[in-house]
Amino acid sequence: VSSRWIDALFAPASVAVYGASRQEGKLGHTLLRNTVSKGFTGTVVPVNPAGGEILGRPAVTSLAAPVDLALISVPARRAPDAVADAARAGCRVAIVLSSGFGEAGGDGRALQDELLRIARDAGMRLIGPNCMGVLAHLCDGAWLDGTYFWAVPTQPGPVTFMSQSGAFGGMFFSEARKRGLGLARFVSLGNAADVTGTDVLAELADDEATGVVAMFVEGIADGRRFVEVARRVAARKPVVVLKGGKGQAGARAAASHTGSLAGRHAATQAAFARAGVIEARDSDAFFDAVTAAASDLPASRGPRIAVLTISGGPSVLAADAAERTGLALPAPREATLARLRPLVPDFAALGNPVDLTPQCPPDAYEPAMRAVYDDPGYDGVVAINCGLDVAEFGAGVTAARAATGKPTVAYLLDVPTVEETVRRAGIPVFTSPERAVQGYALGAGR
Amino acid sequence: VSSRWIDALFAPASVAVYGASRQEGKLGHTLLRNTVSKGFTGTVVPVNPAGGEILGRPAVTSLAAPVDLALISVPARRAPDAVADAARAGCRVAIVLSSGFGEAGGDGRALQDELLRIARDAGMRLIGPNCMGVLAHLCDGAWLDGTYFWAVPTQPGPVTFMSQSGAFGGMFFSEARKRGLGLARFVSLGNAADVTGTDVLAELADDEATGVVAMFVEGIADGRRFVEVARRVAARKPVVVLKGGKGQAGARAAASHTGSLAGRHAATQAAFARAGVIEARDSDAFFDAVTAAASDLPASRGPRIAVLTISGGPSVLAADAAERTGLALPAPREATLARLRPLVPDFAALGNPVDLTPQCPPDAYEPAMRAVYDDPGYDGVVAINCGLDVAEFGAGVTAARAATGKPTVAYLLDVPTVEETVRRAGIPVFTSPERAVQGYALGAGR
Repeated sequence: VSSRWIDALFAPASVAVYGASRQEGKLGHTLLRNTVSKGFTGTVVPVNPAGGEILGRPAVTSLAAPVDLALISVPARRAPDAVADAARAGCRVAIVLSSGFGEAGGDGRALQDELLRIARDAGMRLIGPNCMGVLAHLCDGAWLDGTYFWAVPTQPGPVTFMSQSGAFGGMFFSEARKRGLGLARFVSLGNAADVTGTDVLAELADDEATGVVAMFVEGIADGRRFVEVARRVAARKPVVVLKGGKGQAGARAAASHTGSLAGRHAATQAAFARAGVIEARDSDAFFDAVTAAASDLPASRGPRIAVLTISGGPSVLAADAAERTGLALPAPREATLARLRPLVPDFAALGNPVDLTPQCPPDAYEPAMRAVYDDPGYDGVVAINCGLDVAEFGAGVTAARAATGKPTVAYLLDVPTVEETVRRAGIPVFTSPERAVQGYALGAGR
Repeated sequence: VSSRWIDALFAPASVAVYGASRQEGKLGHTLLRNTVSKGFTGTVVPVNPAGGEILGRPAVTSLAAPVDLALISVPARRAPDAVADAARAGCRVAIVLSSGFGEAGGDGRALQDELLRIARDAGMRLIGPNCMGVLAHLCDGAWLDGTYFWAVPTQPGPVTFMSQSGAFGGMFFSEARKRGLGLARFVSLGNAADVTGTDVLAELADDEATGVVAMFVEGIADGRRFVEVARRVAARKPVVVLKGGKGQAGARAAASHTGSLAGRHAATQAAFARAGVIEARDSDAFFDAVTAAASDLPASRGPRIAVLTISGGPSVLAADAAERTGLALPAPREATLARLRPLVPDFAALGNPVDLTPQCPPDAYEPAMRAVYDDPGYDGVVAINCGLDVAEFGAGVTAARAATGKPTVAYLLDVPTVEETVRRAGIPVFTSPERAVQGYALGAGR
């Protein structure tokens, strides 16, 4: 078994599935099916009191040899036996996905304490209970999917995501798919009886697969240590946090949901700021911040932008958003205009936005865009294209950006060819003109 | 030909397409193909100087008999001849889709004046120039698509949408598809040389097909008349407006884009408020407001809401958003708790959010939801479900809402069965938990 618990969690060689079920629709069936179906090449051992064969694999009633990772999906009252079995066999990490523990109060609290005691006595780390499991990119598109999820995105990339909430994990996965966000690892922390978000975060500073950390937290029990750890990680890679339970009602809900003490939000916010963590206001802003952080957008970007477009109305909205967020929209310099005028139609609007117009010949895109990128009055560019899916647009933006190194963000609508080129170049693509500008502004002046 | 110009525009019996082209990829080809391909059963006459046959229809070089609506897609310098031909034949309305007029300055301005003079002399109304055309639901899923668009949604419904910007029309259509918004009519106004947004708006007060008016405007030339007309329409149906060109840069861009004088935004905002128009801050807020207005959500809704869910984390975010927007989240009353407790698991969180938990038996959803809806402490409900696509959830929400009449909004993720039931009942579905709450709050206290 792995010597480090974090390797056993994110790169296990062997996995046991307690509560593996033959019956479709049961969570224990989904869990086993997910585990064996995404290219995981290690050993997978179903554990079921009835034995027999499940999804073509012989089930054992008790683990005979240790595995790196035990996934436990059994009713709460039977979870202590499963955890004890995994601990006795010498497993490194157990994830209890089942619910009915600390978040349920009463007996649940005692059951959770029992799980923790068994795990600690054996030196086994415990994830959960009351969580959605783990997802990790292993190599070459092979994944370990040890989750309850109905669907997970399997585009590899730099984002490691932690969530106390399972359902928010679903929201994240859905957005990741829409935005083409690539994932490295995901773990759902649930009640965090043993392993906390801070524990995982501490291991991510040196994790080469993780380029960006994204966290949804409802409460941070070990606030002082979190700030210390987060500061260390945030110095090396972006850490984006969404905090649920900011107000009183939200905090009460968080308490009954994952048993978290959400605490006073002003204090939490100050702690995030001290730690250098990017805190998002709501879920949309969280996904925007992760989209920006997961791209090649440099952390430091100046406030003077050009909105470069062939789509008038959406660019007017981008200009409005730029002014709201304190970015500057200077007009192109005379030398830039002199380069642009012979390339674009007479009626092209060469203010800022720089609107080449849909009538601009596609072979003029690249030199025209290069003229704008070359203008020393601009620190960065917001590229906007609605519906004109000509390859030259994507080629023009990526070439001019590569030549000048100027930070670029994009809003693209119904232009799949352009979008693929732009994404492949590491340019973040947002879901509205205003969000593209806000995504740029997030890091402006840093 | 129709006696009222607005009928000729939105329900024409006959259409001419000037500049109809045989060549795929040309706008004049797209326009003709769109016109004949969405179930329009009236006469369609291609007009082309070369004559011949286009898409199986004989083309004429000049119109011999009047049609209701002339769609004109020819180079700017040839547009006056086309408009003159349509006027001479006795057409009721001409839409000039081509660009290179007022928005281009110089000769373009003179050309636009000429179009206007020809149309006015003949008593023909002119839409555009520099626009994307018209889309109208005729009956039973048959549409007139007289647009340049690469794709338009064809789900019939109550929303009539006007846009000065063509590309923003594309954004609207894309969102309408994602959100299942049903359309009645769309017209792109472009430079609005003759027919303005105010002119169309005036005709929509009595238009039975229009339940909601959505407008994207860059400038309002006839501000005083707009306020008068908008007040009259807004008294009968919701009018939602997004104003582009709010700041200085945006206003400059709007001027070169559609030749609009965007004006000082504070004055415009005050005018919108006087008129009873709902003004959206940005494009997301605009789509949210239209989603709410196009649903069965009553205009007046009280501020005390229950967040009713089986998804913990997203509901905590909804609770946070409710507090931010000034809504109240009271706990269920004792009588409600007494009805809920026997129905849901012991560990269900019966605060507010009311989290029935994913383990709640589906046949308990309807009575449990009914208990919450019956609670006199609640004015409305925010329903949230991530990933648990059981029919009973949708049935429970719609039955309890129908029985109590309480305003309901929803956030749903990856639950197609539930979503269809909920939408069919007229409940608006938003794209995040926070947006669902904001959608409710938009009308709270009115």
